[in-house]
This record gives sequence, C-alpha cells and structure tokens, in this order.
Amino acid sequence: MLTKNTIKQIASLRQQKFRKELGLFVVEGRKMTEELLHSNFEMVGLYATEAFLTDYPAFAEAEIVSDVQMQQMSGQDTPPGILAVVRIPKQDEIKISSRIVLALDGIANPGNMGTLIRTAEWFGIHDVVCSSDCVELWNPKVVQATMGSLFRVKVWKTELQVFLQKAKSDSKAIYGALLEGENLFEMKGKPEGIIVIGSESHGIRKEVLPCITHPITIPRVGGSATESLNAAVAGAILMAEMTRP
Amino acid sequence: MLTKNTIKQIASLRQQKFRKELGLFVVEGRKMTEELLHSNFEMVGLYATEAFLTDYPAFAEAEIVSDVQMQQMSGQDTPPGILAVVRIPKQDEIKISSRIVLALDGIANPGNMGTLIRTAEWFGIHDVVCSSDCVELWNPKVVQATMGSLFRVKVWKTELQVFLQKAKSDSKAIYGALLEGENLFEMKGKPEGIIVIGSESHGIRKEVLPCITHPITIPRVGGSATESLNAAVAGAILMAEMTRP
Repeated sequence: MLTKNTIKQIASLRQQKFRKELGLFVVEGRKMTEELLHSNFEMVGLYATEAFLTDYPAFAEAEIVSDVQMQQMSGQDTPPGILAVVRIPKQDEIKISSRIVLALDGIANPGNMGTLIRTAEWFGIHDVVCSSDCVELWNPKVVQATMGSLFRVKVWKTELQVFLQKAKSDSKAIYGALLEGENLFEMKGKPEGIIVIGSESHGIRKEVLPCITHPITIPRVGGSATESLNAAVAGAILMAEMTRP
Repeated sequence: MLTKNTIKQIASLRQQKFRKELGLFVVEGRKMTEELLHSNFEMVGLYATEAFLTDYPAFAEAEIVSDVQMQQMSGQDTPPGILAVVRIPKQDEIKISSRIVLALDGIANPGNMGTLIRTAEWFGIHDVVCSSDCVELWNPKVVQATMGSLFRVKVWKTELQVFLQKAKSDSKAIYGALLEGENLFEMKGKPEGIIVIGSESHGIRKEVLPCITHPITIPRVGGSATESLNAAVAGAILMAEMTRP
C-alpha cells in the first residue's frame, strides 16, 4: 500500500539534494523501465496506473496507483503511467575497456549530457569520464535523454584534469574538440584514445587544455557565420568519425 | 517609456497563440541580439537593464528597463538583461539554393529543431524545409537553440509530402535517415539532394516514406543495444558526412 509519506519521498527525488540524501533516483516510461529491468541496477519500487497496466500487462509486478498518486510522484507534465525508484549505484574505480573513451568537461545541459551518453553507446563507446562539475547523472532529464544507455554505459565522475594527465603520461592520445586543430575529416589511421568535449558556454577549460595531445576541428562548410556547434552534436560527429570501421 | 501594457504584451509572446496574433517573437541575450542586429529581421523594440548596459555599452540604443520589468518580460529564469521584440517575417515561396537541403518531418522538441538549424548552417546548408507539424520556429526555445542561425538559414513550413513528391518527380535524390538503408559511411560520390530527418518518436512518417529514393543508415558499432540516435544527432552526422569536401 502506497503511503502519503512514500509519495512525498518519491516526489522529493526531483531534487538533487534528496537524490543524494536517499541514494535513489526515478525512471519513468515504458521503454526506460524495460531497459531498467534488463539491467543490473537495483529497483526498489515500481508503480503503474491501471490504464497503463491494461495497455501493458507485462508489467504486472508493479504496484497499482491512482492517476492522482502518479501525478504527485511524477516529474513529468504528462506522466507516462509507469514509474520506478532505483538505487544509485556506488561508483567503482575507473577501469577503461573501450578503444575510445568519451571525456566530458563541464557539460551543464541535461539533454546534452544524456544525448552524449546515448550516442556513445551507439558508437560502441562504453566508458564515459566526466568532470565533477558536469550535470548530475541522476537528474531526471539526463536519465530520460540517455534513453536507457545510462544502464549500460559506464559513467564516472572524477577530477578530469588528473585523469587526463595520468592518461597523457601513459602515452594515450587525447583528442580535444576545438575551434582550431587538425581537420577531423583528414585524420589518418584508426584512432584510439580519449575524446574530450568541452562545456556549452566555455568549451574545454584552460586547465584541461595542456592535456590535449591532438586538437581536432570539425570544419565549417563555406563561409558559415555560425560560431560553434552544440556540444552533443560536436561530440556525436567526432564519435561517428573516430569509430567508423 | 515602457508601459504596463507593453510589458504584458511582451510577456504574452511566450505563448504561440499571441505570437501568431501579434506577428511578433522575442529574442534574448547578448549574442542573439547581436546576430539579430546584423540580420534583415525587423526589430520593433529593444530593452536592456542598466547593469547590462554598463557591461555592454554598445547596446546604447536599447530602452533602459528595471530588473523587475525585465523579469516580467523575460521567458528565462535568469534574464540575460537584454531582450528584443522582432517581427515574424512573411514566409516566401520555397526557393532552394543549397546543394543539400535539410527536410524535417514532425520534429517536436524545440531544442532539436533549433540545433538542427544551427548545425545545417555550420555545414553550409542554407535551406530547411519543415512539415507543418514541426514545432513552431518562433518558440523561444527553438530561437535560443539556433544560436542565431535562425536569422540566416531559410526555413520554410509546408506540406512536406507534396514538396518531396515534386522534388522526386524532378529527379532529385531524397535521402532518408532510417534504421535500415545504405551504410552512410560507404556512400560513393558527392551527394546532392534532400536529407529527410523524422520525428523523435516515430521517425519518418509512412506517407513520406515512398518519397525517399535513398534510405541511409548510420551504422551502430559493435553489439550496441541502443535503439536509435537522437534526431538532432542523426541529422548532424548525416549533414557532416554528406557535405564533407
């Protein structure tokens, strides 16, 4: 039986403060819940409306809640009708397994953050290392934008500069998306290493710049007056090009 | 002198209904206003706070407003301090000038819409044709996400299916981003024609599919479990690849 207190607690998970305090985050929607159920993440609660369960009887293990209760718990204007409460996993030590690693320096927009993780998975990149000031991974908008990739891609938060300095001293190639660098489309060979994408407003921060061994530019076409690309778009184009067979 | 009535009218432009009724939209922020001033768009009002003008005296032509007035007019939680009211231009007849045209079928997310227009300009694509159900171009989130490209790229709304049928009968190549098609990275030659990107939830609609002469796929790497890419990301990767010299 869903108590008022539990509803209040779940609603509080919209705020980072309470996610941190309770060690929980929320997943909403059919597809995201399906992906969750196939993952190693620990689910501590699953709630669905009757209307949802009529359409998707496969989720019968969910506790039935009223539309009003769902509205109270959900962070969405139009709740999809199914909501899971999930334990935030402990962060392991960084252990890289992909040929290419994505490193994010100060990504602030939740949509960009989630999209970068989703795109990384598409291109076979299973390791993402984020600076500690990137937007929190369990933010509902980040979770949503990953479209489930969050459950499969390893994402670490760390002092990015320290991680990159170590990688550089281990002779890893560190590619940075910059406005001046080698033309992405003229790169030779099959790259291996770390792709660094900077923040939406300031790009790669100046403390991180000395770690970049290969500045890379996505060339503008014609006399384009645009100053830059969106961070998720720049990351996607680099990942697409650098992982192509 | 800024009247209460004008403030109310500007605030009302957050809603599509009033943008349509008044034929006006709002632009906020230093960079966007700069881009506006360099464009052919007709500005009907420019307002700035004293603090903003102290930092950026070049905008001296703006009418000075109080922080409270700016807060009332602005659609942003933290108003950047400068706000312009702009006339929505009349839509001309479609007249294609780019070698590659971007066609958007039912893009619903304002961030994706704006990002696609911004990315198009980066890759020298100056013509974007949208289905009539795409998110409205003058929506503040679309305007913001274009980062100014909106003032330079031609964007038309039309019956996309009719436009594409006509293009097909004129023997134009029509590339569609689909989950099954030719491998983007194995395409030969220098493509010319129209790139169609479908909606976030349903892809390219079935009425539009028969117009596609070249289905194109961005190949997944490894055994990726992701089902799809974000629409703006897929569009960006196609545009990057198909416009590269």
